[in-house]
Amino acid sequence: MDIPNLRWWGWGTLDQTYSLDHRPRLWPTLRQWLALPDDITHTPPVLLDDMDLRPPRLSDADIGALRGIVGDEAVLVDRRARVEHAFGKSYRDLIRVRAGIVPNPPDAVVYPANEDQIAALLAWAADRDIAIVPFGGGSSVLGGVEPEPGPRPAISLDMARMDRLLALDRVSRTARIQAGATGPEVEAQLNAQGFTLGHFPQSFEFSTLGGWVATRAAGQASTGYGKIEDMTQAVRMVSPAGVLDTRDAPATATGPSLLHLLIGSEGVFGVITEATVRIHPRPQVQDYRGFLFRSLEDGLATLRDLLQGGPKPAVARLSDASETAGFAMLAHAHSGLKALGDAAAEAYLRMKGHSLTGGSCVLILGYDGDVKATQQAWKRAAPVCKAHGGLAVGRSVGESWKRERFAQPYLRDILLGAGIFVDTLETATSWANLLRLYEAMTQALRAAIRNADGGPGYVMTHVSHVYEWGASLYTTFLGRQSPGQEEQQWWAIKRATTEAILGAGGTLSHHHGIGRDHASWFQREVGPLGVEAFRAVKRTLDPAGILNPGILFVDGR
Amino acid sequence: MDIPNLRWWGWGTLDQTYSLDHRPRLWPTLRQWLALPDDITHTPPVLLDDMDLRPPRLSDADIGALRGIVGDEAVLVDRRARVEHAFGKSYRDLIRVRAGIVPNPPDAVVYPANEDQIAALLAWAADRDIAIVPFGGGSSVLGGVEPEPGPRPAISLDMARMDRLLALDRVSRTARIQAGATGPEVEAQLNAQGFTLGHFPQSFEFSTLGGWVATRAAGQASTGYGKIEDMTQAVRMVSPAGVLDTRDAPATATGPSLLHLLIGSEGVFGVITEATVRIHPRPQVQDYRGFLFRSLEDGLATLRDLLQGGPKPAVARLSDASETAGFAMLAHAHSGLKALGDAAAEAYLRMKGHSLTGGSCVLILGYDGDVKATQQAWKRAAPVCKAHGGLAVGRSVGESWKRERFAQPYLRDILLGAGIFVDTLETATSWANLLRLYEAMTQALRAAIRNADGGPGYVMTHVSHVYEWGASLYTTFLGRQSPGQEEQQWWAIKRATTEAILGAGGTLSHHHGIGRDHASWFQREVGPLGVEAFRAVKRTLDPAGILNPGILFVDGR
Repeated sequence: MDIPNLRWWGWGTLDQTYSLDHRPRLWPTLRQWLALPDDITHTPPVLLDDMDLRPPRLSDADIGALRGIVGDEAVLVDRRARVEHAFGKSYRDLIRVRAGIVPNPPDAVVYPANEDQIAALLAWAADRDIAIVPFGGGSSVLGGVEPEPGPRPAISLDMARMDRLLALDRVSRTARIQAGATGPEVEAQLNAQGFTLGHFPQSFEFSTLGGWVATRAAGQASTGYGKIEDMTQAVRMVSPAGVLDTRDAPATATGPSLLHLLIGSEGVFGVITEATVRIHPRPQVQDYRGFLFRSLEDGLATLRDLLQGGPKPAVARLSDASETAGFAMLAHAHSGLKALGDAAAEAYLRMKGHSLTGGSCVLILGYDGDVKATQQAWKRAAPVCKAHGGLAVGRSVGESWKRERFAQPYLRDILLGAGIFVDTLETATSWANLLRLYEAMTQALRAAIRNADGGPGYVMTHVSHVYEWGASLYTTFLGRQSPGQEEQQWWAIKRATTEAILGAGGTLSHHHGIGRDHASWFQREVGPLGVEAFRAVKRTLDPAGILNPGILFVDGR
Repeated sequence: MDIPNLRWWGWGTLDQTYSLDHRPRLWPTLRQWLALPDDITHTPPVLLDDMDLRPPRLSDADIGALRGIVGDEAVLVDRRARVEHAFGKSYRDLIRVRAGIVPNPPDAVVYPANEDQIAALLAWAADRDIAIVPFGGGSSVLGGVEPEPGPRPAISLDMARMDRLLALDRVSRTARIQAGATGPEVEAQLNAQGFTLGHFPQSFEFSTLGGWVATRAAGQASTGYGKIEDMTQAVRMVSPAGVLDTRDAPATATGPSLLHLLIGSEGVFGVITEATVRIHPRPQVQDYRGFLFRSLEDGLATLRDLLQGGPKPAVARLSDASETAGFAMLAHAHSGLKALGDAAAEAYLRMKGHSLTGGSCVLILGYDGDVKATQQAWKRAAPVCKAHGGLAVGRSVGESWKRERFAQPYLRDILLGAGIFVDTLETATSWANLLRLYEAMTQALRAAIRNADGGPGYVMTHVSHVYEWGASLYTTFLGRQSPGQEEQQWWAIKRATTEAILGAGGTLSHHHGIGRDHASWFQREVGPLGVEAFRAVKRTLDPAGILNPGILFVDGR
């Protein structure tokens, strides 16, 4: 179901925010790190009614045709619906919408109720040369749901009405779910029968199964439960050329993988309508604990040992020294980390060779399961942490991370209004190459922020998706916005850092995808011939080229 | 490197066979089960020199051009090389080659030493409209390496010279290996540095890394180590349109998976030249044990519990009652199973409600690791077996399976010479559908054997690749050959059973692939639109349509 009260200019819903009460360190620290002026101006977003929005480029006959397909109530052309579907949730999206710049709004938003309606929409759109943008929760951070620029009309196809659990197989531990189900809808329907999917991206509350599958998403528990492509056993897609429905089997050897051609297709081949996902009994216990390490190297060695020798955690999130200091800055006065920051505790940490703001790296490590299994896991895991100098700092740190893990995007809205840019980058590589990639990316990012007039900036990184063979890096960076040049400034930083990532052997994306923002590097990632292979599939499944133009392929074809 | 002394008319090398000494039950039991005549005639294969072999359809200029590309020594046009590369190792292949029927021999066999030579070969062949058949170990059981019928010349491209370990990353536990390395070559090079790949298909000795990747193979330890697609982190391929080289990272979110488009491509997109595979430290211990269950259901429940609740075994192989009786028939007089078949032991088993030949199902369960880990695994696994009525019958049964696990194809050669057909089928499905599929397949197979004049026949099945969500079925069937009609008889059985498998929701293949024999059902598996998508990729990567024509796509394009 559609989520009411969405914040079109930022994250989540209008009635929620990131509380700054009891977080006394935030502004003073940011002011120092980012060299902010003493007097910070907070600029509110432009009001919806004050935006200069292009009128819908659809005729009454077009609207009538759409209503004929999906029903009168399921076609929206009002200002709010169009702005809500004009962007994803990237920094670039938010600075534009906050400023009232909405260059490519969809001309209508439609909510199909079933596959027949989707097929009819696609046929109608192909016939009329109208672009269709499949829309899940709209949380893309790479421009994946923004309509193409140019004269062709575009319709956002919102999957919100297709949100049901269709079948649950307790014996085989799989569930067939409609693609429009959001994270909470997926979990609520599975939880009611005692199961969980185990997929909890930061966007969990406002992203959908179809969106996860279309972008190869990873949740915060991916170390234990896998990425969405590991959880997805079968996919059904309605493309302009017809329906694709992959074999629902635990494994096959039937040629190239159709399943893995549809997973990650980001709406350019067709609309994902259903998926069979692998589910797990809900864990009795989620035992998440914090550790401090004296260096990133020590923390990485711990993670590598745990992944290669066991026990494999459900959640593993290792922050570098900068992010650890950032945690301390954000710490709630009553949180676990704040307690660690108290004078007495700090003295104790110093005695042990640690300092929250002076080089220590915090690791959140979590085991899911029944009481006995998690106890046994910790009995083996704690000595591994200790062997690398890890200092146990208790469950409260783990709990406070768990409590706030979906909250940080709300903080971004506050910072954006204060003239601060904040964005994230992510990649992955082998263990052997991880520190080299980390250094190359961090240095490039710091230099790029300075070069782009962003001030000293602040760069912080964590490792949060861990494999036997390597790990991901997830970097948050902040700096001073360049007034009137916000988008160009961001592109300059994005370009320089992406080149550094690719140059150091990192993948273009570990779990955000390609979308519009990465499209110009897609060829670097899969090679020119790889792009041509995917283009050939695109032309077969979407011969009129109406689906999500400009995503994956720069020229949209 | 090329394997000398290959048995062109059967399995393995000429100097090896399946010893029938000390296996007193074999012939009497087979005679009874298959209603064989008292006097069995053993027909030897036609001698190489007596075969009516079409002369090579290449001009001296062609041969000269090939020699110019790969070197004089690396182009073979002799009778033996051509016959060795004319077939895979399926029943259909062996009955033809034994009878001296070689309808589609390659016109030459070439052994490139590097990618430049492969690229030159493909360019030359595209220009001349000559088909190229990539050849690893030639162990395909679906016609995957047999050249197409028809007037176009065909060259078998044997990867035997490209067999080296290129790089081993101890830290990240990955290795880059050339595609032509056989199982023993892969393992020897990894073992020398303390690692293993853990991929041990029955064809291990005579199949290659490239062949495994091209067909989505599964080894006998796939339950613990995964299928080859789970082990393969990156692939490099030389196609007629250029080189494809996938990102070497533990995970990515960069659009549809190019990696999984190349894995399973069965030589129709290009020649796989290298792969990065995920490796493991060699296990200290391989502790494999046998159990008897009173029914297939009990054994399946045990496997499901072990996969869903742990500990996950490296090897799990559950035979149905027919295969368990088959084991007893084959048992070596000094083996573990034979000991179980002794009169005193049989009485004991009967007392416990078991009978090797009267309904019991044997499970081979194996744990790999260090001494402590395997002990702990068994401490948890043994009670799971017991809870479902499993009777522990000791390590000797596990050891005797391990000893003989690559030997059975040699027995096939003996049976084929005795007028018996023997072939295998395999599929996979969810736990919830497994018994239904088992029954449907078994019944269809039994009926098909009778209908095809095969006598009563014998059908036996095991489950040997097990997942949290389901499992594979692997069925061996035997019967009386229909003299002069062997191939038609086989096709009749194959067709009826494949229809039954697909009708009951099984996948067309779990680990054998599509090749030529499954090509007419490929569309049933991935849908007409799925086939069209792959065709589009084929046209992009191989515009002249020279690569392995007739594989995957019935019309070869």
